[in-house]
Amino acid sequence: MSATRDRLVSLRRDLHRHPEPAWREFWTTSRIVDELEDLGVDELYVGREVLAEGERTGVPDDAEIERWYRLARERGAREDVLERTAGGYTGALAVLRRGEGPTIGLRVDIDALPREESASEEHLPTAEGFRAETDAMHACGHDAHVTYGIGTLEAVAESDFEGTLKVVFQPAEEVIGGGRAVAESGHLNDCDYLLSVHVGLDHPTGEVVAGIDGFLAVQHFEATFTGESAHAGANPGDGRNAVQALATAVQNLYAIPRHQDGATRVNAGIVEGGSATNIVPEHARVAGEVRGATTELKDYMAERANAVLESAAAMHGCEVRVDVGSEAPSATSDDAVVDVVEAVAADVAGVDSVVRNDDLGGSEDATFLMQRVQDRGGKAAYLCVGTDHPGGHHTATFDVDEDSLPVGVDLLTGAILRLAEERP
Amino acid sequence: MSATRDRLVSLRRDLHRHPEPAWREFWTTSRIVDELEDLGVDELYVGREVLAEGERTGVPDDAEIERWYRLARERGAREDVLERTAGGYTGALAVLRRGEGPTIGLRVDIDALPREESASEEHLPTAEGFRAETDAMHACGHDAHVTYGIGTLEAVAESDFEGTLKVVFQPAEEVIGGGRAVAESGHLNDCDYLLSVHVGLDHPTGEVVAGIDGFLAVQHFEATFTGESAHAGANPGDGRNAVQALATAVQNLYAIPRHQDGATRVNAGIVEGGSATNIVPEHARVAGEVRGATTELKDYMAERANAVLESAAAMHGCEVRVDVGSEAPSATSDDAVVDVVEAVAADVAGVDSVVRNDDLGGSEDATFLMQRVQDRGGKAAYLCVGTDHPGGHHTATFDVDEDSLPVGVDLLTGAILRLAEERP
Amino acid sequence: MSATRDRLVSLRRDLHRHPEPAWREFWTTSRIVDELEDLGVDELYVGREVLAEGERTGVPDDAEIERWYRLARERGAREDVLERTAGGYTGALAVLRRGEGPTIGLRVDIDALPREESASEEHLPTAEGFRAETDAMHACGHDAHVTYGIGTLEAVAESDFEGTLKVVFQPAEEVIGGGRAVAESGHLNDCDYLLSVHVGLDHPTGEVVAGIDGFLAVQHFEATFTGESAHAGANPGDGRNAVQALATAVQNLYAIPRHQDGATRVNAGIVEGGSATNIVPEHARVAGEVRGATTELKDYMAERANAVLESAAAMHGCEVRVDVGSEAPSATSDDAVVDVVEAVAADVAGVDSVVRNDDLGGSEDATFLMQRVQDRGGKAAYLCVGTDHPGGHHTATFDVDEDSLPVGVDLLTGAILRLAEERP
Amino acid sequence: MSATRDRLVSLRRDLHRHPEPAWREFWTTSRIVDELEDLGVDELYVGREVLAEGERTGVPDDAEIERWYRLARERGAREDVLERTAGGYTGALAVLRRGEGPTIGLRVDIDALPREESASEEHLPTAEGFRAETDAMHACGHDAHVTYGIGTLEAVAESDFEGTLKVVFQPAEEVIGGGRAVAESGHLNDCDYLLSVHVGLDHPTGEVVAGIDGFLAVQHFEATFTGESAHAGANPGDGRNAVQALATAVQNLYAIPRHQDGATRVNAGIVEGGSATNIVPEHARVAGEVRGATTELKDYMAERANAVLESAAAMHGCEVRVDVGSEAPSATSDDAVVDVVEAVAADVAGVDSVVRNDDLGGSEDATFLMQRVQDRGGKAAYLCVGTDHPGGHHTATFDVDEDSLPVGVDLLTGAILRLAEERP
Repeated sequence: MSATRDRLVSLRRDLHRHPEPAWREFWTTSRIVDELEDLGVDELYVGREVLAEGERTGVPDDAEIERWYRLARERGAREDVLERTAGGYTGALAVLRRGEGPTIGLRVDIDALPREESASEEHLPTAEGFRAETDAMHACGHDAHVTYGIGTLEAVAESDFEGTLKVVFQPAEEVIGGGRAVAESGHLNDCDYLLSVHVGLDHPTGEVVAGIDGFLAVQHFEATFTGESAHAGANPGDGRNAVQALATAVQNLYAIPRHQDGATRVNAGIVEGGSATNIVPEHARVAGEVRGATTELKDYMAERANAVLESAAAMHGCEVRVDVGSEAPSATSDDAVVDVVEAVAADVAGVDSVVRNDDLGGSEDATFLMQRVQDRGGKAAYLCVGTDHPGGHHTATFDVDEDSLPVGVDLLTGAILRLAEERP
Repeated sequence: MSATRDRLVSLRRDLHRHPEPAWREFWTTSRIVDELEDLGVDELYVGREVLAEGERTGVPDDAEIERWYRLARERGAREDVLERTAGGYTGALAVLRRGEGPTIGLRVDIDALPREESASEEHLPTAEGFRAETDAMHACGHDAHVTYGIGTLEAVAESDFEGTLKVVFQPAEEVIGGGRAVAESGHLNDCDYLLSVHVGLDHPTGEVVAGIDGFLAVQHFEATFTGESAHAGANPGDGRNAVQALATAVQNLYAIPRHQDGATRVNAGIVEGGSATNIVPEHARVAGEVRGATTELKDYMAERANAVLESAAAMHGCEVRVDVGSEAPSATSDDAVVDVVEAVAADVAGVDSVVRNDDLGGSEDATFLMQRVQDRGGKAAYLCVGTDHPGGHHTATFDVDEDSLPVGVDLLTGAILRLAEERP
Repeated sequence: MSATRDRLVSLRRDLHRHPEPAWREFWTTSRIVDELEDLGVDELYVGREVLAEGERTGVPDDAEIERWYRLARERGAREDVLERTAGGYTGALAVLRRGEGPTIGLRVDIDALPREESASEEHLPTAEGFRAETDAMHACGHDAHVTYGIGTLEAVAESDFEGTLKVVFQPAEEVIGGGRAVAESGHLNDCDYLLSVHVGLDHPTGEVVAGIDGFLAVQHFEATFTGESAHAGANPGDGRNAVQALATAVQNLYAIPRHQDGATRVNAGIVEGGSATNIVPEHARVAGEVRGATTELKDYMAERANAVLESAAAMHGCEVRVDVGSEAPSATSDDAVVDVVEAVAADVAGVDSVVRNDDLGGSEDATFLMQRVQDRGGKAAYLCVGTDHPGGHHTATFDVDEDSLPVGVDLLTGAILRLAEERP
Repeated sequence: MSATRDRLVSLRRDLHRHPEPAWREFWTTSRIVDELEDLGVDELYVGREVLAEGERTGVPDDAEIERWYRLARERGAREDVLERTAGGYTGALAVLRRGEGPTIGLRVDIDALPREESASEEHLPTAEGFRAETDAMHACGHDAHVTYGIGTLEAVAESDFEGTLKVVFQPAEEVIGGGRAVAESGHLNDCDYLLSVHVGLDHPTGEVVAGIDGFLAVQHFEATFTGESAHAGANPGDGRNAVQALATAVQNLYAIPRHQDGATRVNAGIVEGGSATNIVPEHARVAGEVRGATTELKDYMAERANAVLESAAAMHGCEVRVDVGSEAPSATSDDAVVDVVEAVAADVAGVDSVVRNDDLGGSEDATFLMQRVQDRGGKAAYLCVGTDHPGGHHTATFDVDEDSLPVGVDLLTGAILRLAEERP
């Protein structure tokens, strides 16, 4: 087993060193394809072949995509993969066909976050030399997820599995941008079972959660305020100040009343405005999101947020354009699959605690895939492999305890083999 | 005269097409040096020779300076000038020595603004093909100011002027960044008289203001808020939100109580914060300014602004660092010089209205130079040459009526010749 | 049964017509004592006898208490009761001793809200002539609660009940003000069981909830801002504006980040400030509350609220005094009692739906009594008797469907009789 | 002179002890009428006779007027005066007819402010026992103004004055409420000259200002927000929070951009909202004012304020009603009258400094009377009698140095006698 562990660690560290944000996972996809070709899967879909046309959301502008594309090439991404992912159509899907048996899907996500990684020597990736080489960071553990996908494929391929296994390496989860496009591609339509997996989530190494629920429905938005500039000293009274509108909006977004029906969230994640200290700001922009424990609660937040944005603009004589961005629904893990994961987990080496259910408290576009499978009669579960992580998810010191890499592979492999034995 | 007008128009349009913001006037300085060498001045100081070491303020970061430096080279700036201005030491000073007589200074500023120019066909520079080629804009008429400097030098050189004329082409006025460094260089210490000039200021073509007063004292600041990031969905309660601190600060900066002793100003000119829609923002920044009709009023605003920034940070559990940037004092035009300008103006072709005094209502780092000369016994005035301008100063459609170019040159030349006849 | 219903309706309407807010229930206590004396209870405690000294919270000022005291006298409240409740020591406790058996407590609350009642003819109390005669309103159904208390005492008294029944008519629930004082009086220390009851809570007539949980812990606060006044026209710059501090605080109180661990609440329920349009406000006050699904979450909100209040004051050069007011903990209904209520409910006439558990989503100082009993080995439950109510709780059109009056009495009586049969 | 001083001091202290706010000056009017009858004026108009019907603004509600009316009666106000001032028609006008000569008006205002007076022993009125007996306070010196009116009438009556003198004791200046009604009454239509006077204004005892300018135009407003209440714990998401709307409005009112054309002001002088800590506030109210150095600037502020109020309501799903209250225009003192005052002042005992012009920086409804006289060809001036005042105007420790009482009477008398000699 130690050979496997070394291999998983090595793959994960290589991915960790090359983080790429949503829709820019060119090097990552190339690396995945390398692995898949080595494994010898039966079918391999790359880039546009995995994504329904016109369904991607949260796509950055061309210049940004171009920048990462060039960077991937410089770092040695394969030209054939670059060609198939050009324009930001990243991701891949591998199929293993092993005779009669159910079709089982496994979804892992592959993107990193646009944030800087800690340079502290107390941060393991820094100390051991696999800190991010880009200005992005695998601060949510998707490097481990990719590793789970490859490791599980390999293990299942070597087993006596009977059935069909589809592993999708989904791009752009962090912007809730890829799930819908993969769902709409139809690749998973025939799945009898679907497993999705996340590492960490504040569960320690050795703990496993068989079924995650409590996905918050989410909606991204971007509001662009346009006022009128004026000289801040000579004629401030002639300006219409987009930054004042923005500030009023931000304060009141966070102040949207809490709702009795359950959890809600709002975040003004990125703000910017103005051009010079002595010019009354003409432009300002806020990119944010609202969430809710249910779609209704998310809609409540979205509606209130809209009123805040419109009124803040009107208050300061500005215009505002509100663009609705990515969205994802809620979802629930099916008991039948949770039962299997729970049973299998007990026997996995390194697992000392099995939690049947927990709430995510966040959002995930895996819910598009879960819904798709469930709507067609299949069953789905979202499971969690605990890992000791020094910093929280999305922070500069997040890291994965590499002992959790073989745990995840063994758990997923075990669950897939067991599910293949069921006759749905 | 028409030949002169054509020449002035041609120079001004060339400058207009190549706007460069504060401390990045590489091409502009090169162009000025070309003109000065053609004129054959007696002494010529360039770049570091005009600026006291360590006194520049509002200097952008190295990458930004480097970008404009490269751009200037690509557009054909002279290598010798590039060498002398490397690192953002822009500007020049020319001296004409013509026998006995008083020393007279003329100060013009040369920088543009970091804003986009109108692309409308109704905007003359667009229609006539001299719209900015960079992403900056001469939106305050400093292209006309440089033209005044060159044209006046030429006219005085050709006259029977007796005395010494020093024309300083000052960089970085828009960030209140160059005036102090030029004053501290000592070049103007021996001036008996100093003239500064501005075009427009809402006065129409044909109108002249002999003495501008009402300079607002100004102080720039930059506040950097640091909180703690957290996942906006999974653990918002653990974050300390720098963007909430920023929004609270912005709202309350503008709400600093008006003061009975005179005009005050505040502007949160540039804001930015956060990194992703789903991360509670850890960082935010606001760059702004306060002003006052007197230094006391400016200090009142600065003190209140500081309390707002500190308290907004504390309110949201954040830290804030407040950096004080550029400053400029108030100043007053001397009656003795205003008398001369007023008298001369009446005889200048194209002038149909002479206003003795008006208030600027803005800030200017020319006040450093005026104070320096006045502190040493000299006299100073700041005058205005009216121009019909379609858009306001600092807006996308600002433009100079080119009929005001010869008016300014004639007025300044006439005033300098008359002042040279006075024995201070 | 119809005679009973008539009697209950008549009592409830009389109470509804005479609503009295917290610690001002003089007439109400007098009316209750009348009923209790008619019933012939074994012990009767009134006013100070029911309340531990120094434990009341949320007590209004003397003038306000005096006003309602006079009003109660004018309306015919008994002089002996007025004497025992003078100073705002309202409420009563009746004890029925019927031989051996467990001691069972029943707690009902008796106060009204300081809000106006709808005068619409569509509002039944208006149409039928029992709308509030004061400027308060029974907008939360405590008139029904008192009726439940009296009706249940009467029914138990007429039954073959063996044991001790203590019914406490608790004052000042709406300000979370009376629960602690009753708990600390020790009257309920020996209870084996405690039932508390609420009408409505969005459950329709005919529905019963056997055990309410999800009580939000709560803490009231009052913040008093003191700045410095100045003439708003002549010297606004000299003022320190308490209303600006208040406005900044209110905006940011509502904007305290949501918490991942569960429900939180904040409300700036009452604000006031300033004295004249032309005076910069020197004083301002906000009375509000924070809540949390757990005591920890309530403390999180309280801590954040404190930072907001302190910083808002500092921002505007003001002082602030923050007084912490009433508090109440969370609580949970005991399964053993819920089982009994659930079983009994099925047989009560008029009940067509029995819900085992539901969340309150609000706060209640009954939790002090529940905790007290539970801490000493007793068991407690909080149950709900559904009622169709046209307007929401605390709104002007709230009303109780009087069909739910006999349902409540039968349910409570049935539960008490069944509990008396248990041997704890 | 000492006898006169004693008499003036005694009158002023009596007035100081009985302060009454705008439209509630019942006792004050009675006291004035007493004095005027003692003096034996030729015509005396009281209450409704001085005020044009329907032109009063800023009138409080009936209950408030009634309260002060009763209070005045209890303190011994004359029944005949009470009858003529019933309903809040306060004030008086006395006419002295002394043969041929110009008609000269003198306007003094008589109301106090609704604020508490300092109880410190360092506050002279407290130390010497003439601190306010009501909960209002003569914090602006109108007690001195009334004294000037009476003293001047007396002195002129005893002089060889030839002409007509009309002294108006105007109510409700503090709410900008009485000036228009007196102007519209027509009593001053035939004035050749009009003097208005104010004590203090930060000028020390012994200093006199011959002509005050810089009156800020003013407009009062009252905004009433109506949302929807809800239980703050159980269903906050159903509320529409009027206090959040108010807070957003207040913050943004103060943040209305300063204007380059001159001084502007805004004040949210009184705020109130909500009814209980646990109810989402349904109602909120802000009473405030905007000012400007010109009517245009005042209109700019009013327009912006309106946008703020409307948008703040919309942002929180509330309605808002904005009622425009009292208004007053700007005004300028006429040089011809200022010349006379300046000349006379030099000879008045106790005057050691004569300032020709100063700016008020506040608002005054004397401007209605000045405009009225000026519009009909007369001339007007507003003058100031300096007084050392420990606290600022409108603060709890404001007080008048009584040495300035005879100074004011002598100055006004001298100016009136000199003006009477002019033949306009």
